[in-house]
Amino acid sequence: MKPFFELQALCPVTGARAGRIHTDHGTVPTPNFMPVGTQATVKTLSPMQLEEIGADIVLANTYHLYLRPGTDLIDEAGGIHRFMSWKRPVLTDSGGFQVYSLSDLNRICEEGVEFRSHLDGSSHFLTPENIVEAQAKIGADIIMPLDECMPWPVEKRYAEDSTDRTSRWALRCRDALGPVFRHHDYRQFLFGIVQGSTFEDLRRRNAAELVEMDFPGYAIGGLAVGEPKRQMLDLAELCAGLLPAEKPRYLMGVGFPEDLIRSVERGVDVFDCVMPTRNARKGTLFTREGRLVVKNAAFARDSSPVDARCGCPTCRRFSRSYLRHLLHVKELLGMQLASLHNLYFYLDLMRELREAILEGRFPQFRDDFFRDYRMASD
Amino acid sequence: MKPFFELQALCPVTGARAGRIHTDHGTVPTPNFMPVGTQATVKTLSPMQLEEIGADIVLANTYHLYLRPGTDLIDEAGGIHRFMSWKRPVLTDSGGFQVYSLSDLNRICEEGVEFRSHLDGSSHFLTPENIVEAQAKIGADIIMPLDECMPWPVEKRYAEDSTDRTSRWALRCRDALGPVFRHHDYRQFLFGIVQGSTFEDLRRRNAAELVEMDFPGYAIGGLAVGEPKRQMLDLAELCAGLLPAEKPRYLMGVGFPEDLIRSVERGVDVFDCVMPTRNARKGTLFTREGRLVVKNAAFARDSSPVDARCGCPTCRRFSRSYLRHLLHVKELLGMQLASLHNLYFYLDLMRELREAILEGRFPQFRDDFFRDYRMASD
Repeated sequence: MKPFFELQALCPVTGARAGRIHTDHGTVPTPNFMPVGTQATVKTLSPMQLEEIGADIVLANTYHLYLRPGTDLIDEAGGIHRFMSWKRPVLTDSGGFQVYSLSDLNRICEEGVEFRSHLDGSSHFLTPENIVEAQAKIGADIIMPLDECMPWPVEKRYAEDSTDRTSRWALRCRDALGPVFRHHDYRQFLFGIVQGSTFEDLRRRNAAELVEMDFPGYAIGGLAVGEPKRQMLDLAELCAGLLPAEKPRYLMGVGFPEDLIRSVERGVDVFDCVMPTRNARKGTLFTREGRLVVKNAAFARDSSPVDARCGCPTCRRFSRSYLRHLLHVKELLGMQLASLHNLYFYLDLMRELREAILEGRFPQFRDDFFRDYRMASD
Repeated sequence: MKPFFELQALCPVTGARAGRIHTDHGTVPTPNFMPVGTQATVKTLSPMQLEEIGADIVLANTYHLYLRPGTDLIDEAGGIHRFMSWKRPVLTDSGGFQVYSLSDLNRICEEGVEFRSHLDGSSHFLTPENIVEAQAKIGADIIMPLDECMPWPVEKRYAEDSTDRTSRWALRCRDALGPVFRHHDYRQFLFGIVQGSTFEDLRRRNAAELVEMDFPGYAIGGLAVGEPKRQMLDLAELCAGLLPAEKPRYLMGVGFPEDLIRSVERGVDVFDCVMPTRNARKGTLFTREGRLVVKNAAFARDSSPVDARCGCPTCRRFSRSYLRHLLHVKELLGMQLASLHNLYFYLDLMRELREAILEGRFPQFRDDFFRDYRMASD
């Protein structure tokens, strides 16, 4: 049997790596980006469209699925792949982040976290054990342990207590069903999540503890929550360097195209972010020259595609003018075509990064990218 | 050159007919149904998806396009086909119906109709001549003259005045650019619209006048506005019988699947209606057994497709349970998949009707359909 992660190439100059994550629903070449499918759907797009633009894996949110349609329902449907008709790999987060950001009330104790649903006010209590159970039922190929994603900035005393508790929760998650288990008829892999806010010593200690627990892969959590971009990149690099080379590294919730390249450079393999889809729905599109606010009146009569160099279904067939019209009059097709483009942009960028690493020309690719790309101000 | 309309078969028992409408953007076999693409997009669906489910022609609304993005903009883009990237035929209505139903204020006089935009309150004056000009710029293959679609019931005195004015407007429309003209690099065909509310004598007189004007095709307007279903069918039959056999007949704004079959039986060739798309977005799906409110909790755990006999992209891949979840949590993919199904249902039904007529077995097909299909109460 193939190993879970296969490291294929290392950039001789930077920390960039290329590899493959093998799951029972197929292989995810890395570096890669996971479109966010919060409620078992990547907003506005069908699985057919995700296949067409070459998505290798999608992320779904345990918090949302736990509330609606419920984990038992997805379990009965045979797991999330069958439920949403997506045959390739899926990753679910633990729901921890949403508990803190979305729920009406939450109370953390050693045992777990209590929260009230943002939908109907009902009370729920998540524990490391029942969150693994919920994700086992949902049936993603890669699942996450319960953790606390701290706000930034946070006092060191709180950060230390939180990081240590998250570490104890990770162990309880691992011990619930093991680091690799089967609930459906395929394997599910549990990752560890490195926390520690922006405190280097906490990050070091937490990473060491998690490595000791021997997870199949590791996530770097608690970043991109407001800290300066420079600090985010430094901490991602620090964490990546503390994690075993032979396991995949997933930087949670990041980010802009430039952040992805800068993080790949620092040894990160996998990303997820609502950036491409959320921006698309609001009319901001990514191009190799930077961001294009296609909703602006300036594009009302522009018959050129969003990005002349792009091969996505939107750029192959539609003009900026038509896209601007659809978004302006609030037609859903506008959000669909914009989402297709932005996700294609992210996925295509990852494909090119991968090839560049495999062919030993990552630094050149990075420099070429940044020469053309006008970054947004941090 | 092929004639605009080619009559291929007549049902020996009923008034049903099969034919072909030839335009410079391709052929529309009849009977057929036109998905409604109000703002140059069939809500939630891409042109690629419309091609996939076999749409032969779409309808767009002049009123909406005149306001946004504006007819000059579409003209500059090379016409609506290029603007929306739809290569097959397009029909535009005259905007008359929307002026009465959507605008904040309207005033009709012999010269035309004044209205205030429902969007920004701006004043506009539509005349038979400028509505033809607007549609010439939009560039649909088939266009409609300015008419008044009366509410129901209406006093006979008013109906008579209105119908006669609509008749004079039709002549002015014809004389503006001719019944067939080129504004872009292809032909555009102007239809006549038979009005007369539910008064048989007015319908007869109006039809005779319009036939005299020799349009390439005819629409039957002012029906499905509240009158009893029986009366709608009787009047459609009356009008169809008054129109020349060698020209296509389009019943505007109709209707449910059962209405389409009953109208084809009475000699109608083409339909348009928001029924399949609007119902889809609200969670009501059409099946060969009748309507299915898939949004209902009863389908939460139903792993079967919407209609096991359906070959649409939605039924081939997704369950009622997943569709119910998407609609329940208000994910746009739910509206997209439901719209795909409902339009496929309508288009597939028209394909089967056509084959049945061509093969001389329309009455049998109709009887088989109504044996299985549970109709909604009128």
